[in-house]
Amino acid sequence: MQAAAGEVEAVLDMLLPKPVGPEMQLFEAMRYAALGGGKRLRPFLTIQCGRLFDVGVAQLRQVAGAVECVHVYSLVHDDLPAMDDDDVRRGKPTAHKQFDEATAILAGNALLTLAFQVLSRPDTHADPFVRCELVTRLAAAVGGRGMIGGQMMDLKAGEYEHTIEAVTRLQRLKTGALFVFACEAGGLMAKASPKAMHALNAYAHDLGLAFQIADDLLDVEGNAGRMGKAARKDKAADKATFIEILGVERARDQARRLADQAMRHLDLFDERADLLRAVAEFAVARDH
Amino acid sequence: MQAAAGEVEAVLDMLLPKPVGPEMQLFEAMRYAALGGGKRLRPFLTIQCGRLFDVGVAQLRQVAGAVECVHVYSLVHDDLPAMDDDDVRRGKPTAHKQFDEATAILAGNALLTLAFQVLSRPDTHADPFVRCELVTRLAAAVGGRGMIGGQMMDLKAGEYEHTIEAVTRLQRLKTGALFVFACEAGGLMAKASPKAMHALNAYAHDLGLAFQIADDLLDVEGNAGRMGKAARKDKAADKATFIEILGVERARDQARRLADQAMRHLDLFDERADLLRAVAEFAVARDH
Repeated sequence: MQAAAGEVEAVLDMLLPKPVGPEMQLFEAMRYAALGGGKRLRPFLTIQCGRLFDVGVAQLRQVAGAVECVHVYSLVHDDLPAMDDDDVRRGKPTAHKQFDEATAILAGNALLTLAFQVLSRPDTHADPFVRCELVTRLAAAVGGRGMIGGQMMDLKAGEYEHTIEAVTRLQRLKTGALFVFACEAGGLMAKASPKAMHALNAYAHDLGLAFQIADDLLDVEGNAGRMGKAARKDKAADKATFIEILGVERARDQARRLADQAMRHLDLFDERADLLRAVAEFAVARDH
Repeated sequence: MQAAAGEVEAVLDMLLPKPVGPEMQLFEAMRYAALGGGKRLRPFLTIQCGRLFDVGVAQLRQVAGAVECVHVYSLVHDDLPAMDDDDVRRGKPTAHKQFDEATAILAGNALLTLAFQVLSRPDTHADPFVRCELVTRLAAAVGGRGMIGGQMMDLKAGEYEHTIEAVTRLQRLKTGALFVFACEAGGLMAKASPKAMHALNAYAHDLGLAFQIADDLLDVEGNAGRMGKAARKDKAADKATFIEILGVERARDQARRLADQAMRHLDLFDERADLLRAVAEFAVARDH
């Protein structure tokens, strides 16, 4: 993952505008938020899923860069005072703390827009049908009926009952949809079979839930320094989490079960899927 | 334009998600901001430019709807407290006043995302090359090197000299780029000749500047009630405007000249361009 993170860093550096002109603070903020940090898990998934099918590495990296742009945009906006109001992210001040709120909002918007620009560009894939499919699916995954809807649900956590169904739906929207896109993108670029696409979808779905439960556990038990962000925020903010419903022990068991299940979805792939299997292990064993 | 506004209203109503679920406030805010108001000038341009070449009306309306989604997103975000901090828009409370800041940010994000989803969908155009081109060009027009860069430049107006070149560049980014996309989209969908595309580009460019100067004049001289938004805001906020540099009389002359020039770019089109000619007239003669 560290090697892949280096590749992602390099492609982001290439995709992001250089800071020039009277609007340069916008580009500085995009670079500040996107470069030099993060696990790069989602772009790693895109690259590894694409490698299952021998998709060209340069094109995979580009799509992986777009996926990370969208993830960073979501972090920058989630951290805003009007949202979760966080001061620290990836071990440094959040974008609105480093610059200001207006700049953080605009930088997020520009990162989101850049992702669509990259996906639709001819050098991302030779087949325009594939490029359109990437754009349509990313927009569906992170739009009002996807990630943004999940964020709204998160903010309205005080207004509905926190059943297991509600929390599962919240996490599927807020985290799961982009995990699914990150994995499916590799398959789409290879025009993978429906069976392979189904496996990627199921893997991403279970991995996303396992990852989210582990995230919730880290919020309860984790070390803020190691995570590079504040801990113990969920309960204070009355967030809907799996811990709240299952308790710590059952949540940990559930994350473990989901990670194992995610790995089993990869049974139809050979040893090229070993890194994806290892990611499922990492998702539940990590301390950051 | 009123007839076209009705068409745009109908297509937006169809494109926007219906408010259901615990995240329904997001969909309510998207509909609140997008429906029931506005001149619908940009989608009108898309429809009229497409009609020059006999592009199918249903497809044109869909692209016009995407253009308006992007424009509304830009208004919702521009009105935020961290940006221009406006309370009234299109004659009603701004989205963050009607709902809250978080909801307004998310609704803007979801409108932007929806635009890309619509452009990339198969029912928007039979040729995926055209759909990709629409996505790439819209993203370029409204991204960091386009509209968002213009908004950043607007916020940093105190940090550079307000020369005619700087203000022209600011307006080209902030307003002009989306005008150009709105017009070119119709030509792209028809695979219009380079000569016709150039004419649309030049028309949109001059129209956008004329429109912006008229907007600046309205800010100085206009009636807030008729405009549906606050007046006399630019000077108070130290915005970079054409009025500041040219004064009211020369700015009015310049808008007139640009509108005439915009019309002349349409000389290669027949009477089907008459409504586009009338729009150039409207851009400088309007009182709202």
